[in-house]
Amino acid sequence: MMEVEANTIEFLTRIRQKAPLIHNITNFVVMNSSANILLAIGASPVMAHCWAEVEEMASRASALVLNIGTIQEDWLESMIIAAITANSVGIPVILDPVGAGATKLRTEAIEKIMEDCSISVLRGNCSEILSLGSADIKTKGVDSSLSLSDRTVDAARQMAIDKKCVIAISGEEDCITDGNKVFRVRNGQPVMTRVTGIGCGLSAVTAAFCAVADNNLALATAAAFGYYGLCADLAVKTSDKPGSFEVAFIDQLYSTGSEEIEGQLKIEEV
Amino acid sequence: MMEVEANTIEFLTRIRQKAPLIHNITNFVVMNSSANILLAIGASPVMAHCWAEVEEMASRASALVLNIGTIQEDWLESMIIAAITANSVGIPVILDPVGAGATKLRTEAIEKIMEDCSISVLRGNCSEILSLGSADIKTKGVDSSLSLSDRTVDAARQMAIDKKCVIAISGEEDCITDGNKVFRVRNGQPVMTRVTGIGCGLSAVTAAFCAVADNNLALATAAAFGYYGLCADLAVKTSDKPGSFEVAFIDQLYSTGSEEIEGQLKIEEV
Amino acid sequence: MMEVEANTIEFLTRIRQKAPLIHNITNFVVMNSSANILLAIGASPVMAHCWAEVEEMASRASALVLNIGTIQEDWLESMIIAAITANSVGIPVILDPVGAGATKLRTEAIEKIMEDCSISVLRGNCSEILSLGSADIKTKGVDSSLSLSDRTVDAARQMAIDKKCVIAISGEEDCITDGNKVFRVRNGQPVMTRVTGIGCGLSAVTAAFCAVADNNLALATAAAFGYYGLCADLAVKTSDKPGSFEVAFIDQLYSTGSEEIEGQLKIEEV
Repeated sequence: MMEVEANTIEFLTRIRQKAPLIHNITNFVVMNSSANILLAIGASPVMAHCWAEVEEMASRASALVLNIGTIQEDWLESMIIAAITANSVGIPVILDPVGAGATKLRTEAIEKIMEDCSISVLRGNCSEILSLGSADIKTKGVDSSLSLSDRTVDAARQMAIDKKCVIAISGEEDCITDGNKVFRVRNGQPVMTRVTGIGCGLSAVTAAFCAVADNNLALATAAAFGYYGLCADLAVKTSDKPGSFEVAFIDQLYSTGSEEIEGQLKIEEV
Repeated sequence: MMEVEANTIEFLTRIRQKAPLIHNITNFVVMNSSANILLAIGASPVMAHCWAEVEEMASRASALVLNIGTIQEDWLESMIIAAITANSVGIPVILDPVGAGATKLRTEAIEKIMEDCSISVLRGNCSEILSLGSADIKTKGVDSSLSLSDRTVDAARQMAIDKKCVIAISGEEDCITDGNKVFRVRNGQPVMTRVTGIGCGLSAVTAAFCAVADNNLALATAAAFGYYGLCADLAVKTSDKPGSFEVAFIDQLYSTGSEEIEGQLKIEEV
Repeated sequence: MMEVEANTIEFLTRIRQKAPLIHNITNFVVMNSSANILLAIGASPVMAHCWAEVEEMASRASALVLNIGTIQEDWLESMIIAAITANSVGIPVILDPVGAGATKLRTEAIEKIMEDCSISVLRGNCSEILSLGSADIKTKGVDSSLSLSDRTVDAARQMAIDKKCVIAISGEEDCITDGNKVFRVRNGQPVMTRVTGIGCGLSAVTAAFCAVADNNLALATAAAFGYYGLCADLAVKTSDKPGSFEVAFIDQLYSTGSEEIEGQLKIEEV
């Protein structure tokens, strides 16, 4: 068995034993699906966004997810309070820059969060992530919106060093790097792009894996990506249509264990 | 047939005939699932939270649900306006104290609502409910977070008297009491805790049963709990995994009638 | 093959090829389901409501959906900014008047939007739509809450002329008119009324069809209604219970193509 498979099984076992509390400040579209995804893998989700309670909630949690889809100004303030709290108590913060690059509000929200707080993992698709890099990085990554080219991997690695966090890019092939280690993950299915909240759900699952990973954040993120993609690989055996796929995928997140994982993770450290 | 079964069938029949309008001011996570749960049993859900319309909406409704998950300050004001309206027109108010005890904002929101308005049924899990009791009650209930001990039942009964409302505690075994009568309900399945919004959906279903119960609130709440748990008991025959269980559960809420109910409700009046 | 079937197939083909961006400012209850419905037919949904980004988002989109369920005052401002932008860039605006007539807030919101902006299609059920007409229209339509009487069709046609937009009334039989052409659509199933967000989802699908219809808005709306209803007709063959129906319906929206459409659309131009 690959070492990363043993790690994945170990992280998953800890999640199911400890049911870590994952505090989500996330968008309206995916609150329900992210909660169900976290419950399915064995974590305990809580959604709380009001400035008056995010400090208390984050300080009780084992990880924090910030997701800027459907952001508005008062939520940004809450995200920053929660992230500063998370930093002070030492729990991982996963940031999902939904739609970064699409509007000024979103791009600036991400920049403000990353200025004021320390982020553990930045997870998004290629265009979202690269839109947040330096001019040099945007140029490097520009040809790479679909496939994972070497130039994109280089750009991600540079960005991880610049931003001092794990960069995790979802796509047909995923790329996870802390600037030093680089993991490529090839589990996952095309139908995932036809179900809303699947990407956001991966950010939540990444938070749960990081919550139990003793600070091995790049490894935990790669494990989360591999596990999540594998559950999709198994779910398409039931259905490759989006409605019934989503149902089967939740079932797989709940039931997939060491037996299904062994030999099936397509995670490569490069 | 048990008398409570005949009552349950009668309440359900009235819901399906009259389609009572249930006004929900509820959290973002469960708005969709609560609406679907209410539609499935035959009620008419409406979600409306803006202070400018809650008075009108509550005055047209047959019951009001207040649920403080994802609460923020302006929503609390709306909840109080709606509940005062509900009190004045004489419709039942079901309060779901999601996360009470977890943050000051939530605990104080519940206290404020219960000070300013008259609540018909307070429905939550054991730790939520007991966190709202007196110091004495918290002590009484402290050993009871999992099973329904006699001490918890005593604490619930005392609380019902103190708060002048039905106390309804969900758990492996449920406890419903108005301070005088006590019902224990043993329908329901463990997988319900792995699907988000199932507890909140029970608060909504309780509202629908209370809406047609001619003020027999403890009985209507016990009937709602028994029916809801029975639908879960039937749904797990299709699947005990959370994604497909949720789908089967909605189907059962829609199709379960007198034939399935007879002899299957595990409701005991003690 | 009916001409309208050829048009429907053509519109659907364009949606699947171009994946038009549909900007939704919609209610909290249906954000997830509307996004999934749009993804299933091949469109690209985005939900964005903050005043600070709606201008940018609408100007990148191919159509705009405004839906006033769960409206609050600041969202109304955003809707108007977005609609003015949509008007200036020339993309269709679909308005769903959820609960119009039920509260003053909702009725006035619709009136304000229609005063300040140009609406392409107003889609709702009979009571919602007719509540927005003149006194004369309310009288004409008053007997028609269930079946589609000639009086309702006349009222809708007059309203289309008065409001300078397509009027699209959903019901057992649907009526779509631009004041000149009138389409009646008889695809669709009763169980659709037992799943939340199905009506709102049709508004979103109408937006996607209008986005690719070169300004043939009445025809595009009729095509959207026929296609949507046909997918329901096919989904009930899998299940007529609301939980599993919803799953099957999403699958059908994804997979139904020219083969299933030919000869199956019950669209009549009168």
